[in-house]
Amino acid sequence: MITVSIVGASGYTGRELIKILFKHPQVKIAHLTSETYKGKRISELHKGLVSFIDKKFEKLDIDKVAQDSDLVFLALPHGKSQKPVAEFLKKGKKIIDLSADYRLKDKSLYKRWYGLEHSYPRLLRRAVYGLPEIYKEEIKKSSLVANPGCYPTGVILGVAPLLAHRLGDGNSIIADAKSGVSGAGRRLDIAYHFSECHENLVPYNVGEHRHTPEIEQELSKISKKKITISFTPHLVPMDRGILSTIYVNLEGKVSIDRLRNVYKNYYRKAPFVKILPKATFPQARNVVETNFCEIGLMVDRRTKRIIIITAIDNLVKGASGQAVQNMNLMSGFRETEALL
Amino acid sequence: MITVSIVGASGYTGRELIKILFKHPQVKIAHLTSETYKGKRISELHKGLVSFIDKKFEKLDIDKVAQDSDLVFLALPHGKSQKPVAEFLKKGKKIIDLSADYRLKDKSLYKRWYGLEHSYPRLLRRAVYGLPEIYKEEIKKSSLVANPGCYPTGVILGVAPLLAHRLGDGNSIIADAKSGVSGAGRRLDIAYHFSECHENLVPYNVGEHRHTPEIEQELSKISKKKITISFTPHLVPMDRGILSTIYVNLEGKVSIDRLRNVYKNYYRKAPFVKILPKATFPQARNVVETNFCEIGLMVDRRTKRIIIITAIDNLVKGASGQAVQNMNLMSGFRETEALL
Amino acid sequence: MITVSIVGASGYTGRELIKILFKHPQVKIAHLTSETYKGKRISELHKGLVSFIDKKFEKLDIDKVAQDSDLVFLALPHGKSQKPVAEFLKKGKKIIDLSADYRLKDKSLYKRWYGLEHSYPRLLRRAVYGLPEIYKEEIKKSSLVANPGCYPTGVILGVAPLLAHRLGDGNSIIADAKSGVSGAGRRLDIAYHFSECHENLVPYNVGEHRHTPEIEQELSKISKKKITISFTPHLVPMDRGILSTIYVNLEGKVSIDRLRNVYKNYYRKAPFVKILPKATFPQARNVVETNFCEIGLMVDRRTKRIIIITAIDNLVKGASGQAVQNMNLMSGFRETEALL
Amino acid sequence: MITVSIVGASGYTGRELIKILFKHPQVKIAHLTSETYKGKRISELHKGLVSFIDKKFEKLDIDKVAQDSDLVFLALPHGKSQKPVAEFLKKGKKIIDLSADYRLKDKSLYKRWYGLEHSYPRLLRRAVYGLPEIYKEEIKKSSLVANPGCYPTGVILGVAPLLAHRLGDGNSIIADAKSGVSGAGRRLDIAYHFSECHENLVPYNVGEHRHTPEIEQELSKISKKKITISFTPHLVPMDRGILSTIYVNLEGKVSIDRLRNVYKNYYRKAPFVKILPKATFPQARNVVETNFCEIGLMVDRRTKRIIIITAIDNLVKGASGQAVQNMNLMSGFRETEALL
Repeated sequence: MITVSIVGASGYTGRELIKILFKHPQVKIAHLTSETYKGKRISELHKGLVSFIDKKFEKLDIDKVAQDSDLVFLALPHGKSQKPVAEFLKKGKKIIDLSADYRLKDKSLYKRWYGLEHSYPRLLRRAVYGLPEIYKEEIKKSSLVANPGCYPTGVILGVAPLLAHRLGDGNSIIADAKSGVSGAGRRLDIAYHFSECHENLVPYNVGEHRHTPEIEQELSKISKKKITISFTPHLVPMDRGILSTIYVNLEGKVSIDRLRNVYKNYYRKAPFVKILPKATFPQARNVVETNFCEIGLMVDRRTKRIIIITAIDNLVKGASGQAVQNMNLMSGFRETEALL
Repeated sequence: MITVSIVGASGYTGRELIKILFKHPQVKIAHLTSETYKGKRISELHKGLVSFIDKKFEKLDIDKVAQDSDLVFLALPHGKSQKPVAEFLKKGKKIIDLSADYRLKDKSLYKRWYGLEHSYPRLLRRAVYGLPEIYKEEIKKSSLVANPGCYPTGVILGVAPLLAHRLGDGNSIIADAKSGVSGAGRRLDIAYHFSECHENLVPYNVGEHRHTPEIEQELSKISKKKITISFTPHLVPMDRGILSTIYVNLEGKVSIDRLRNVYKNYYRKAPFVKILPKATFPQARNVVETNFCEIGLMVDRRTKRIIIITAIDNLVKGASGQAVQNMNLMSGFRETEALL
Repeated sequence: MITVSIVGASGYTGRELIKILFKHPQVKIAHLTSETYKGKRISELHKGLVSFIDKKFEKLDIDKVAQDSDLVFLALPHGKSQKPVAEFLKKGKKIIDLSADYRLKDKSLYKRWYGLEHSYPRLLRRAVYGLPEIYKEEIKKSSLVANPGCYPTGVILGVAPLLAHRLGDGNSIIADAKSGVSGAGRRLDIAYHFSECHENLVPYNVGEHRHTPEIEQELSKISKKKITISFTPHLVPMDRGILSTIYVNLEGKVSIDRLRNVYKNYYRKAPFVKILPKATFPQARNVVETNFCEIGLMVDRRTKRIIIITAIDNLVKGASGQAVQNMNLMSGFRETEALL
Repeated sequence: MITVSIVGASGYTGRELIKILFKHPQVKIAHLTSETYKGKRISELHKGLVSFIDKKFEKLDIDKVAQDSDLVFLALPHGKSQKPVAEFLKKGKKIIDLSADYRLKDKSLYKRWYGLEHSYPRLLRRAVYGLPEIYKEEIKKSSLVANPGCYPTGVILGVAPLLAHRLGDGNSIIADAKSGVSGAGRRLDIAYHFSECHENLVPYNVGEHRHTPEIEQELSKISKKKITISFTPHLVPMDRGILSTIYVNLEGKVSIDRLRNVYKNYYRKAPFVKILPKATFPQARNVVETNFCEIGLMVDRRTKRIIIITAIDNLVKGASGQAVQNMNLMSGFRETEALL
């Protein structure tokens, strides 16, 4: 049994964390903080939880949260996590940071893509990138886990086996991703008004989305060489789910059967990755409200390309479910606890 | 040929006005004002108009607008129209006000439901309620038309013939209305975030929506007695359209055939009202992007009630289309010009 | 621990039953039948269950199902349940029938509204109407439960306390209901094509929906007099959820505080009914994917009416969740097992 | 003034044709045929047209249609157009065929991708591919125009200038396309049930969609060499609109300014193609209910790729609007008549 707190609990990832943790038999929630909604009942903000939890959002008090928690989730905007992470760490707490602040190992990349100096560059090295399918052992031993971005989760899981086995050309990777609107967060911006998103389809940050260097960092590690990719996100008129359609030039020849075996073997210890049957591709609905990542594969002989399609729920495997999966590993619980 | 301007042209009703007026062969647009977006190209804000119009929003300059316009549309928030209406009127301009500021004849009602004093109570009497199906002749002669609210348009058109012919009990009227989200306007409010409206259905202002006194004022006039109604609006996860389901206790007996004839006769000179065939009811889609109001009727012998269902596009017949219909009447144009 | 089977498991209520029962610690699923999809893996049809269950749909074999099951759920179309219910009953099985076949006590009403003769009129008397908030004790002892319709669940729960306490006029009840499209079932009909439902709002069976006599039967029982109501269903462009807006003329006077107390007291032993705070009304999202029924109340002094708004998930409290709640009661399990 | 008929007028492309032609000042509609709905009023099927047209669907009678029409639109399923096209042609009629039957010049490709023999291979050569931005002069002189598929329209318009100017590698083209559900047509298939499409995102025919050879045929012509492309369509939960995100490897160097100029120049006589400002990309909404194709361009120096995003309305520029544009050219009318 551990006690946890959520710092920045009023957004959609906060809501999902609460929902999942509430069902977790070995977790007790201590504090839920929100600067915007402090004093407000969480049931007023988070519809559908009304019946379950009767707590109020509190203003963040680092000492109090640290004193009452074994592990702290931070679901703050990018840039806002740097300092509290350092402070909680100094107080000996385990931390899972859902922001991008501790994902990039290279502080100059962080500066370039997020426009911010990093005040704790030494901690960047200490942070473990929280993708359990790749870093399970490191996560188990870590006290600072940088929870991956939603798009990177879908794209990295989609191409990791291919690159690890040198079956595709890493620099030919094109990832065309489509996300539900909840991926933008509970943000006041006219772009997310129902009447602007509904019956619409919107490409954004074309060629310059901040998740690009995160994906490249991890794919470069797997490939053991510098990888540059094309990544284009689109906003789709649905609430949840990310579908990533990924194109990679084949290196040599591979049959679809061998390819599927390579993937199945690579993920044999990954309880949340499903390799779909031949000629079957994931749909967003398959994974919504689950922590699964479904992967469909095709070898296109006409174009000598491999097409990989992955689907995750952006708020679960792409954020809060993955965070709980990381917590389970860091706490010695069953990896799938509260997630199946 | 007349020249018109739109004051407050950046909202959804502004956008629809521009779209309709652009197609109008006898209208030239002079100024489009917006305090929030002044200096911005309208094509940046209003998607889909990019190809048509290359104008910028301007700050409101009453003298300039008055000088360059024969007729002014005001699409400002409630309360903000009072003064500019008075000023444009003083300068001899024709005005169509899409706000609620000149709809209620009784300034104490305005105060009670809108929480504001009315600074120009004498103009209230001068304003004509811009529902052409009822006030066509008055509108033709008026220089100040108060364009009806979206809900009142659907409800009043639905019950006017019934009350005029004393076939139903005015005080038994229950109007249960369902609107697309564009009815809320282009407003920054978390309640209209895609992820809050989508896959949701939200009753609001139950028993206390501001359109209630507007409906009651008009129904009382038609009935020649004070009418009090129940009116409940709901937000539906679609962009456009209002469906009003209206229940009225029968007074005496009436067959569905006679009822349909009463309605058809009442609206024989109304080019935008369609009485649907027996046992047929309107759907929102039937009228979207049109200025029509469709009406379906049922006489329910089991409950001795008449059920009336009306559908309009909240942004067209419920706002900008109706405004242009009024402009056509005020300017001596064909009533349906640019609207068919 | 009991073993159950689902007859007609390929529809949306079948899918939800599987999802809920799969999480139930005291239930094992024996057979899932479907005439249309027999031989097909359920994971091919029911998206999102792919990871959980690896069973195939079977052709219905009553002997085999009876032999292997303690309790049988029937999720067949109306009219198709009459016979298998009788047969399973003869074999001593407990039955929860999700069709309308055993809901109406009066076989002439069944004939009139469903157009079918009832071949087992004696069983009609034996069947218990499966609304646990009203018939909990009868359900516990029954072996044949007729699971209520989705609309009746929302409407009956909304007005039962009012009628039981004679606070409203039963014959003034107007229930205006709005449902997500999954309520129509997984049916091949052009009316449910995405492009027909999306960005649309459709009233249907106005004044003649088959759920009307079911609601009237139950309300008449509670009122101890014959009740006739107006009931109008609408199809809303969302997948799940029913919102019922109900209008009742006040009898005498009642304050909102007293009214809320009456409701809270009436449902004090009902774990799935929530009476919302004053001036608060349910939204569809609040209850989606839950077995809750939320109720918001208003006393409108202007019109001397009570307005009641209820929300349920049509597939959970309106069908499969309620069926499991009934199963829990019939089997001596905790009423909320697998439903919280 | 010409008289036209629509063979197969009950689908969504039929409905859009009717809507556009109804507004066309130089066109009179003679016959609307439908085998499925013959005898039915078109207003019963096509919502929103109820007020405009009071015609019935007729059974196809080739002699009668030919006698009464100058030009015939065929909106039949693939394979069903072969014969009527040949017969109308023999009778000297002008024809615009919206099916795929006369698009591919190579009958063996038609056989391979559509699984059908072509009975009129000689007519294939006579048919002009109806993309006015490329074949305007040929269309003007033709009496048989094969109207392009929706996806090919968006993809070909997106890369034609690039290939014509040898700025990109034709065999590196990856087109990732996303379409609204109306693209699937008014078809009875459970895959298009609202509850299956809504809140979902579905890739389909991955690597093997029938529009692939059509795109390759046209791009090969422009490039003057054989082009093979990757094309992946996805179904998005919206009604209308196609967004195509296209990736091409740069050949040599090109600045974004030069690239935009190349495109603007290539389309200088194309009234429906809009090259968006730098760093601006189209959204589906921009073009819905219009005949425009919007194109946004990016030169990505990091990856040495050009990213092209195009948007069209699948039912207008992707089908019926383009058909009317072709009719205008074939009939000597203004190219934009009824389309602006």
